[in-house]
Amino acid sequence: MIVGILGAGQLGRMLALAGYPLGLRFRCFDPMPDSPAAQVCEQIVGSYDDEAALAKFATGLDVVTYEFENVPVAAVRHLAQFAPVYPPPAALEVAQDRLAEKSLFRKLGIPTPNFAAVNDRAGLDAALHEVGLPAVLKTRRGGYDGKGQAVLRTPADVDMAWQQLGGEPLILEQFVAFERELSVIAVRDLVGNFHSYGLIENSHKGGILRLSVPDAALTTAAMDQIALHFIRLLMLQLNYVGVLALEMFEVGGELWANEIAPRVHNSGHWTIEGAETSQFENHLRAICGLPLGYTYARGHSAMLNLIGGVPDVAAVLAVEGAHLHLYGKEARRGRKLGHITLRAEDEQELGEGLWQLQTLVDAAAVG
Amino acid sequence: MIVGILGAGQLGRMLALAGYPLGLRFRCFDPMPDSPAAQVCEQIVGSYDDEAALAKFATGLDVVTYEFENVPVAAVRHLAQFAPVYPPPAALEVAQDRLAEKSLFRKLGIPTPNFAAVNDRAGLDAALHEVGLPAVLKTRRGGYDGKGQAVLRTPADVDMAWQQLGGEPLILEQFVAFERELSVIAVRDLVGNFHSYGLIENSHKGGILRLSVPDAALTTAAMDQIALHFIRLLMLQLNYVGVLALEMFEVGGELWANEIAPRVHNSGHWTIEGAETSQFENHLRAICGLPLGYTYARGHSAMLNLIGGVPDVAAVLAVEGAHLHLYGKEARRGRKLGHITLRAEDEQELGEGLWQLQTLVDAAAVG
Repeated sequence: MIVGILGAGQLGRMLALAGYPLGLRFRCFDPMPDSPAAQVCEQIVGSYDDEAALAKFATGLDVVTYEFENVPVAAVRHLAQFAPVYPPPAALEVAQDRLAEKSLFRKLGIPTPNFAAVNDRAGLDAALHEVGLPAVLKTRRGGYDGKGQAVLRTPADVDMAWQQLGGEPLILEQFVAFERELSVIAVRDLVGNFHSYGLIENSHKGGILRLSVPDAALTTAAMDQIALHFIRLLMLQLNYVGVLALEMFEVGGELWANEIAPRVHNSGHWTIEGAETSQFENHLRAICGLPLGYTYARGHSAMLNLIGGVPDVAAVLAVEGAHLHLYGKEARRGRKLGHITLRAEDEQELGEGLWQLQTLVDAAAVG
Repeated sequence: MIVGILGAGQLGRMLALAGYPLGLRFRCFDPMPDSPAAQVCEQIVGSYDDEAALAKFATGLDVVTYEFENVPVAAVRHLAQFAPVYPPPAALEVAQDRLAEKSLFRKLGIPTPNFAAVNDRAGLDAALHEVGLPAVLKTRRGGYDGKGQAVLRTPADVDMAWQQLGGEPLILEQFVAFERELSVIAVRDLVGNFHSYGLIENSHKGGILRLSVPDAALTTAAMDQIALHFIRLLMLQLNYVGVLALEMFEVGGELWANEIAPRVHNSGHWTIEGAETSQFENHLRAICGLPLGYTYARGHSAMLNLIGGVPDVAAVLAVEGAHLHLYGKEARRGRKLGHITLRAEDEQELGEGLWQLQTLVDAAAVG
């Protein structure tokens, strides 16, 4: 089978590396040549509105997937004429529009911060009346890693936020003083089988994920159950196939949904070494109609992102249980250049290794 | 860094897949296009005596390694002018000549079946006098997977064996009624650090490896120590860098050396999922001057080779803990097309999964 991947970033790269052992072949599509995935598989270079390039990409593909959620839905729907596309384009559509996303949570009874649509300046006032302050004004589309949003703490912030973001469809969301950020990642196959990797605790800095720790000891069984229930509801509603991530806040001991990512997810990179079957392999198994692999953890793991700079490789590899993943990208401020997964047999060992790695990673990070 | 790999078979393929996460790039060299490694990295197609093709291959390489031991030593020595070659060519030379190999074992005090060189028909008689019957007559060079050898049980077999093999340099070896076959795989870096994966029990059929089980419970601590001592002696003597495999027989509770493979080895494929760091990654770490990774086992593992035919992929993946590795080769009788590593938390679970997989694998095997 030949799998087509829209986007050729690190997620595409790790998909290809996970899929070769299954006998799969890969072709990626991206406007940028020599992207991370293109270093390990064939790439078609083209823009997402270039139908000729998309047709060339689609030739002979058995299935199409995507590795970032800002790929235009039109391109995905166009490709669906040539080969099955998973996850279903409807999931992509929802994920690209914060209003549709939040509305879906609300419809399914999944707690989420209060929100209201904002289409003009008067709409912002109406939304403020409904949501209250503090609140966050966000573009409905296109923002990621903290971009395209403004925090409104007092009425004095409203005009500046409007100046910054007004003019495109917006959403006003209740500002949530959450205790921490969690995600749950699950996979669903063509016939509805479902496996989850459980809850993962995530730490961000500057709007960028820095550390993910999948540890049952950090959460309660009840929370795990609830997270599983939420992601299962979403997958059923979307008739989902592949890996889905649900990002949540813990607020007063409760889980509130923040957003979904209809793809393999940064907070699941630890599964390469830390789970019996990685999220990358399971995504491919799902979209290729193969049985899902078991998702249980192997020992204890933690994942650190390498942002803007790469620490000394030899120093990293000298840490017991450290597994380095570089994406073949040029260093640039705030850019995800790679990650390290630390795997250990017990929590104490994990803590010790993490301390060593964190020092190295922080010293090298830029942005 | 760019790593050049002589040979583009499955070992090269798995080296590349293990090395991309370290940020390495790969170029392989092989006379056959679209070989397993060429599906995942750049390939230079050429014969091993084509100096122009070798020069093209060598351009910009930081280090050269090889993935099968019948690559001509002349090609390797030629490339050593352009970039460091690891493992050292001297190890390749020894591995290619059974007489040199057995002589090295003898010199280092490593038990090995009795042997004698055979250069002509009279030499065969002299060797028979020294070694006795039963014995195995083998070509000194080129044989693998049971090819290029004849078993001599009675004096009546001698003439036929000579007719079959006479005319090239031979070695006569004592026929050993061994209890079982074992291997030990170790890795040594540029500054002499050393890690071993411990003893592995191997089962062959038709001269081809079928099953490898790395299980400390199958061996004694004393045997492990002895195997470690042997492979360490060999590595020191050869000033070895990279992964080395030593194949042995167990004879009356003792370990006798049979042969070395100066490369990653089929009996070490389980290390991808079954060890903290795989043999492939550790080989690359060693030859690239990076710190070695820990080699301890993760749970219990077993590896089954897929020979001549591939079982139903969905049935294999449905077995808990089964990890499939296909090499992208056309099916052909007796050909290694892939392997499955089974990983389990305890021996009982391993035994149950192995029984399921063995049934699937045996039904599909051809040759």
